[in-house]
Amino acid sequence: MTILPIRPGLEDETPYGAPELEVPARLNVNENPHPPSQAVIDDIAQAVARAAGGLNRYPDRDFPALRQALADYLGAESGVRLAGEQIWAANGSNEVMLHVLQAFGGPGRACLSFTPTYSMYPEYARDTLTDYVTVERRPDFSIDLEAAGERMRELRPAVVIVTSPNNPTGTALPAADLREILAVARGSGPAGADGAETDCVVIVDEAYAEFRRPGVPSALELLADNPHLAVTRTMSKAFGAAGLRLGYLAASRELVDVLRIVRLPYHLSAITQAAALAALAHREELMGQVASLRAERDGLVDWLRAQGLTAHESDANFVLFGPFADRRAVFERLLADGVLIRVVGPEGFLRVSVGTPEEMRAFRDSLGAVLTAG
Amino acid sequence: MTILPIRPGLEDETPYGAPELEVPARLNVNENPHPPSQAVIDDIAQAVARAAGGLNRYPDRDFPALRQALADYLGAESGVRLAGEQIWAANGSNEVMLHVLQAFGGPGRACLSFTPTYSMYPEYARDTLTDYVTVERRPDFSIDLEAAGERMRELRPAVVIVTSPNNPTGTALPAADLREILAVARGSGPAGADGAETDCVVIVDEAYAEFRRPGVPSALELLADNPHLAVTRTMSKAFGAAGLRLGYLAASRELVDVLRIVRLPYHLSAITQAAALAALAHREELMGQVASLRAERDGLVDWLRAQGLTAHESDANFVLFGPFADRRAVFERLLADGVLIRVVGPEGFLRVSVGTPEEMRAFRDSLGAVLTAG
Repeated sequence: MTILPIRPGLEDETPYGAPELEVPARLNVNENPHPPSQAVIDDIAQAVARAAGGLNRYPDRDFPALRQALADYLGAESGVRLAGEQIWAANGSNEVMLHVLQAFGGPGRACLSFTPTYSMYPEYARDTLTDYVTVERRPDFSIDLEAAGERMRELRPAVVIVTSPNNPTGTALPAADLREILAVARGSGPAGADGAETDCVVIVDEAYAEFRRPGVPSALELLADNPHLAVTRTMSKAFGAAGLRLGYLAASRELVDVLRIVRLPYHLSAITQAAALAALAHREELMGQVASLRAERDGLVDWLRAQGLTAHESDANFVLFGPFADRRAVFERLLADGVLIRVVGPEGFLRVSVGTPEEMRAFRDSLGAVLTAG
Repeated sequence: MTILPIRPGLEDETPYGAPELEVPARLNVNENPHPPSQAVIDDIAQAVARAAGGLNRYPDRDFPALRQALADYLGAESGVRLAGEQIWAANGSNEVMLHVLQAFGGPGRACLSFTPTYSMYPEYARDTLTDYVTVERRPDFSIDLEAAGERMRELRPAVVIVTSPNNPTGTALPAADLREILAVARGSGPAGADGAETDCVVIVDEAYAEFRRPGVPSALELLADNPHLAVTRTMSKAFGAAGLRLGYLAASRELVDVLRIVRLPYHLSAITQAAALAALAHREELMGQVASLRAERDGLVDWLRAQGLTAHESDANFVLFGPFADRRAVFERLLADGVLIRVVGPEGFLRVSVGTPEEMRAFRDSLGAVLTAG
């Protein structure tokens, strides 16, 4: 009999993750429903074969080619020109955010976010011994700037995470609100080693940014004026490459250089670098699906409202809808029909990812039957 | 002007890593000098193409197929039969060890190792806010068990890291010594949450185990009796797949289950899982190179001694040799000849990886000239 010295705070924890079930309509983790085309698959396989020819060697620790390609992609997507040195990447934006909290968080420091929001943030904080503090969003999921500013000045957090479009609500943050948060963050960080004033790092998690509606800006536009801003992105959603695990961020060179200290050397494999580069070369094809997913999403919101439900306006590839007296029961009834959605967000609400037209039909058929049955 | 809130302890740190230089003989990071064969490359490319067909979906969080294949490989390599549930894997044994320290280390807890040893351990400790404590090895690099036991009982470390074969010395730990450390570790962990007695977790880092000489046992043989033991391995060295970034460990199911709490979800990409599975299917070919590398290493030790140098007996794919009044000067002179080795280990010593016969000839020619010149 052994008793392992599990560190305090982990004793009652369980591994994070949504159920991994093989059902016809997997609409629970906001994946892109479209698999890559044969052309993309072939190019990835060829690029990986080339990389495998030197597999006995360690990969490039700083992956400049991939960082430049990501910078180019962001330039094409948002119109904001960035240097490769302003990009950082890791195995999923999970790991990117862990790097940020390893660099700037830690014991006695706080990370602030605005709930309801993405449920992994408290895990990044837990894993870096950072206090996790939240400010509740307004009923329409906007951020109360006065409350936010007050809390930031009082708490002096090392990191603030703003999610836009927010998960699980789908709502984007207006640019003016972000500008105000960035202004408050100046000088509101924890005292530095020598008692010096610091700026609080503001992460804008734009995992779903490519799905935003026309006219909604990206936080990338604010990078030039805000060296304490980091905008995280991922290839898992719009790009349709969740299986690749490639998350990244754009920030000032200064901020990126701090992340290089805490990354484990060679964290990004030669295979991942090669596959990501190959996928990025097909960005036009992959991004072409975004328009149809957006249209499908807007139709979904309309349909849900036509059923008498509340469906929040979404800039992402999912919709939060409800309320239900017993949301768990609705979830189970859809699952029985082969439609897997997510129990997450405010009490009574459910979240559904935007799938293929066939998957959405299955969702509407199943939910329609539930609503008719009452 | 911004001042980022870098967490205390990181202000003067720089990114870890040996120089990445393009020279004819790269003998500085203990890579396997043999690239994979075309058959291996083709199978990896095919497996990745299959995985890429579903790249829009997240990978399996618990990768049971890969864990079973790694268990099978260890069974074939060491004769120790393990279940897939006893295996954990991540992006390099770097990340595996980070998981162990995230799970069992933390503020107010200590990690003990025996120096000189692998220079990344203090970084894992730093990144998890764990105290890093060392006990000096004897002049022959063996562990003084009395000193080790005393320190463990007094310190009550959460984790002890024993490296065998040790890096940068090449020396393996006798099985009897490891048994004694495991016995002392029982009940010597930090007090649990409720003040309960715990066992200290013992990591045996066997990154270079496949290169051990005949008759040197693996710590895997002790797993059945020691639920507080974790044996880490990697595909980066003997397996010739440093670019794949696949590290793993074998331990009790109980210990592995704690690691699952701190891993980031989907940390191992579908591409990595597929490529690793494909490479493991070729284990006989890949392991065939180990015999020739061992022979090359033993010949290298003999040659170095014939030059009047001290060369430590090695169970790894590198040799520590010296002493030199100015080791940096010797390093630079070899580099000028296109031979990149490593300045690491005890003062006056240098480490050279075992390369191809051609690379070793270049090394001997260059070092021979240095020694002749005096």
